Amino acid sequence: MPGQSEDGSNGGEFRGHRDTAQVDMPMAPPRRTGPVGAPSGPVAPQRALTGPVPLPADGRSDASPLVRTVERHLDEILAAVPQPDPIELAVLDAQGLLCAEDVVSQRALPAFDQAALDGYAVRAEDVADATVARPVELPVVGESVAGASEPSSIGPGLAMRVAAGAMLPSGADVVVPAVWTDNGAARVAVQAGPPVGSYVRRTGDDVTPGDPAVHVGTPIGPAQISLLAAVGRDRVLVRPRPRVAVLSAGTELVEITSPLAPGQVVDVNSYALAAAARDAGADAYRWGILPGDQRRLAEVLESQLLRSDLVLVSGTFTGPAFDMVQEALAGLGGMRVSQVAMHPGPAQGFGRLGRDEVPVICVPGEPVAALVSFEVFVRPAIRLMLGKRQLFRRTVQAISGQHLLSPLGYRQYLHGTVMRHPDGGYVVEPVGEATDALLARMARANCLIVIDEDVTEVAAGGLVTVMPLLLGG
Amino acid sequence: MPGQSEDGSNGGEFRGHRDTAQVDMPMAPPRRTGPVGAPSGPVAPQRALTGPVPLPADGRSDASPLVRTVERHLDEILAAVPQPDPIELAVLDAQGLLCAEDVVSQRALPAFDQAALDGYAVRAEDVADATVARPVELPVVGESVAGASEPSSIGPGLAMRVAAGAMLPSGADVVVPAVWTDNGAARVAVQAGPPVGSYVRRTGDDVTPGDPAVHVGTPIGPAQISLLAAVGRDRVLVRPRPRVAVLSAGTELVEITSPLAPGQVVDVNSYALAAAARDAGADAYRWGILPGDQRRLAEVLESQLLRSDLVLVSGTFTGPAFDMVQEALAGLGGMRVSQVAMHPGPAQGFGRLGRDEVPVICVPGEPVAALVSFEVFVRPAIRLMLGKRQLFRRTVQAISGQHLLSPLGYRQYLHGTVMRHPDGGYVVEPVGEATDALLARMARANCLIVIDEDVTEVAAGGLVTVMPLLLGG
Repeated sequence: MPGQSEDGSNGGEFRGHRDTAQVDMPMAPPRRTGPVGAPSGPVAPQRALTGPVPLPADGRSDASPLVRTVERHLDEILAAVPQPDPIELAVLDAQGLLCAEDVVSQRALPAFDQAALDGYAVRAEDVADATVARPVELPVVGESVAGASEPSSIGPGLAMRVAAGAMLPSGADVVVPAVWTDNGAARVAVQAGPPVGSYVRRTGDDVTPGDPAVHVGTPIGPAQISLLAAVGRDRVLVRPRPRVAVLSAGTELVEITSPLAPGQVVDVNSYALAAAARDAGADAYRWGILPGDQRRLAEVLESQLLRSDLVLVSGTFTGPAFDMVQEALAGLGGMRVSQVAMHPGPAQGFGRLGRDEVPVICVPGEPVAALVSFEVFVRPAIRLMLGKRQLFRRTVQAISGQHLLSPLGYRQYLHGTVMRHPDGGYVVEPVGEATDALLARMARANCLIVIDEDVTEVAAGGLVTVMPLLLGG
Repeated sequence: MPGQSEDGSNGGEFRGHRDTAQVDMPMAPPRRTGPVGAPSGPVAPQRALTGPVPLPADGRSDASPLVRTVERHLDEILAAVPQPDPIELAVLDAQGLLCAEDVVSQRALPAFDQAALDGYAVRAEDVADATVARPVELPVVGESVAGASEPSSIGPGLAMRVAAGAMLPSGADVVVPAVWTDNGAARVAVQAGPPVGSYVRRTGDDVTPGDPAVHVGTPIGPAQISLLAAVGRDRVLVRPRPRVAVLSAGTELVEITSPLAPGQVVDVNSYALAAAARDAGADAYRWGILPGDQRRLAEVLESQLLRSDLVLVSGTFTGPAFDMVQEALAGLGGMRVSQVAMHPGPAQGFGRLGRDEVPVICVPGEPVAALVSFEVFVRPAIRLMLGKRQLFRRTVQAISGQHLLSPLGYRQYLHGTVMRHPDGGYVVEPVGEATDALLARMARANCLIVIDEDVTEVAAGGLVTVMPLLLGG
């Protein structure tokens, strides 16, 4: 087998996570302009003046030392988020969560010896020589059907009709499938002799009392629910969904259906971030637009801290409106707003506020930057609170269909569309045209293209790291 | 690039669906017993007497012509399931569903010319010659912050301080980032002259009124919710989640926490199938164990038909209890129970019952068979009702770690664990030991191994089709 790294499908690296996902994505249509993978000459820089702002050319071309790395900001958040205590839930409500106990079976599964299918319970030695040409005839001494019943038994040379799942009479050690017989009622002609134990399920074949059934850390899906129910558990201890409150800050914000005055903008982020938080597994609560009144604002923040495991605030980190928010946050314990070496961004905030030191993450108010920041900082935090081992989305390496530029020292996240290439591997194109990936473009994207801090240029045909944005992962 | 079919990762075929998924799965540990892919001699048949029952060796070794194929049963179901009418939901409730309208924007996005970042709005020609060594000084005539405001303007040779997202004063055609200036208040020294349009977002750059925003058939995730909110939509027409009622039939069944009399079995399936239906995207309702009283049973079935888009019944299709269910079903329009050439199975039922001809799918009562049947018949039906284009799970080709046997004429589904092979591609092992995959084994599996009707044997090291069972897909 050729190594998968050759075709770019197993070489993805992002924060040291090398596992990759090949994902539900359409095949790329054949391109009119020649093979995607073919290197082409450099094209005009398309994003030079919409990306992060480089300092003027005076020798300081790298990111300022005051700017912190994406990793540092993320590590601060991940180190500070709490792990909510496990809670007991009804098994159906536990769906999608991680088991927080080692469930030990109190029961044997199956609970009794039973027929695996419809047929006749017999002793194997009585029918060992049976063939179609020379069937063995046995008297039928009754029938065992599914359901509660007194244990029955058969003696040598006798057969009992049994239904799938019905108790096996003691004395029998094999079930002859009905299709290997003449289906007789008083007597049955058996046309084949299966070995001892055939088509029989023995008590405890599956689980014996004391066996571990579902382990700590197992994701609970339909099969685990099936097993939990079978071993007698209607409730199970799980890692709960973290409660995430989503708030928007900004005097420019209005509700979706409000008429817009000049300069006003719809509060998009409380909806989008609540959806993203829910998609990441949180129990998300959209509070909406923070009030403009200072006292009322502090009250809202305090009440949300009391009811949440994580508070998420989006807003523009400049101007009088955010100053007021920051003041309110400062009164609750302090929030550090950092310049993080990423685009979009870079203004990102984090603090632990209130009596319980609830983590509060602030992301930029610009909607594309808000959802990118969610991917980079908030989704891993939610997954950590859920107890997931895999905090980060899988990445793949894809061939860039375009020449891409990225400023030195900044990690750039571009929305793109990634597709399978008909010849194998993946091809990715940034969405839209030359300018910022705005909302309509973001909605057409199925991935983020991640360009590392030390990369300033990706040639058309070169490999880039791509993070497919699958829903519900 | 080598073709992916060479490494087995793109050759999956199942019902003509060739797209594959490489999925979230652990790397296989190094094997002590030598390479997995190395062919080994035939081993003792491990499943000969627990799989489907072949007829005795009298020349009729294939499935009986009375047995229908998996495809035929599936096609009957898919042809009969209705497509529920679209409904209007609040955007956050629409998450995860498919858009059922072409949403056209009534608004321009952005709604006004604005600064893309904090800085100074100027005329590009006024600062064209600015450098760090020879900055251009301009008087600052005010500040534009985010929020509702009267439109402002600047004349030639002037600058206005602007915040990201704030209205651009008319007369300005560029924003000079604050980091390229001395941050002056009354006068500003500009150290670089960006081209016209830099760091400016123009009205309608993203969306102009009349532009399509979200198309029919688009899955609604955070990015689509963001766009819908931005274009002024707080509600959207979507394909609804089909309402699926889940019932169990069988006199042997008792509730999870009941003490078990001999012959009694916990009702596992109403839980597991409700979880599976929800995982597939349905609005699942667990009714539970059907009553034993004939009249009450008919009443339950009728009421569930009235409130459901699909009814799912699990039960053993033999014995007096199911006869009663079948009689009740027959009174509502008729149910065909077929022998389907699959293992586990084969007894599968389908009908359209009640005044509204609601589809009713019956699956076997044995819990492993019930969940396999769900995968094969019910999940695609639910996805069809949701409007999804991709009805079936992606499959991959994997190297079988063991010698596998399968009866001619039957499609066999074995639970297994599939892992990435360190050298690329996938390796799959059936779960557990020689006998049927029972509940505890199923709960350890992460895939179904699918062995086609015309294959009777897969050598260790040979390729098999594997259907990873990811949750939430």
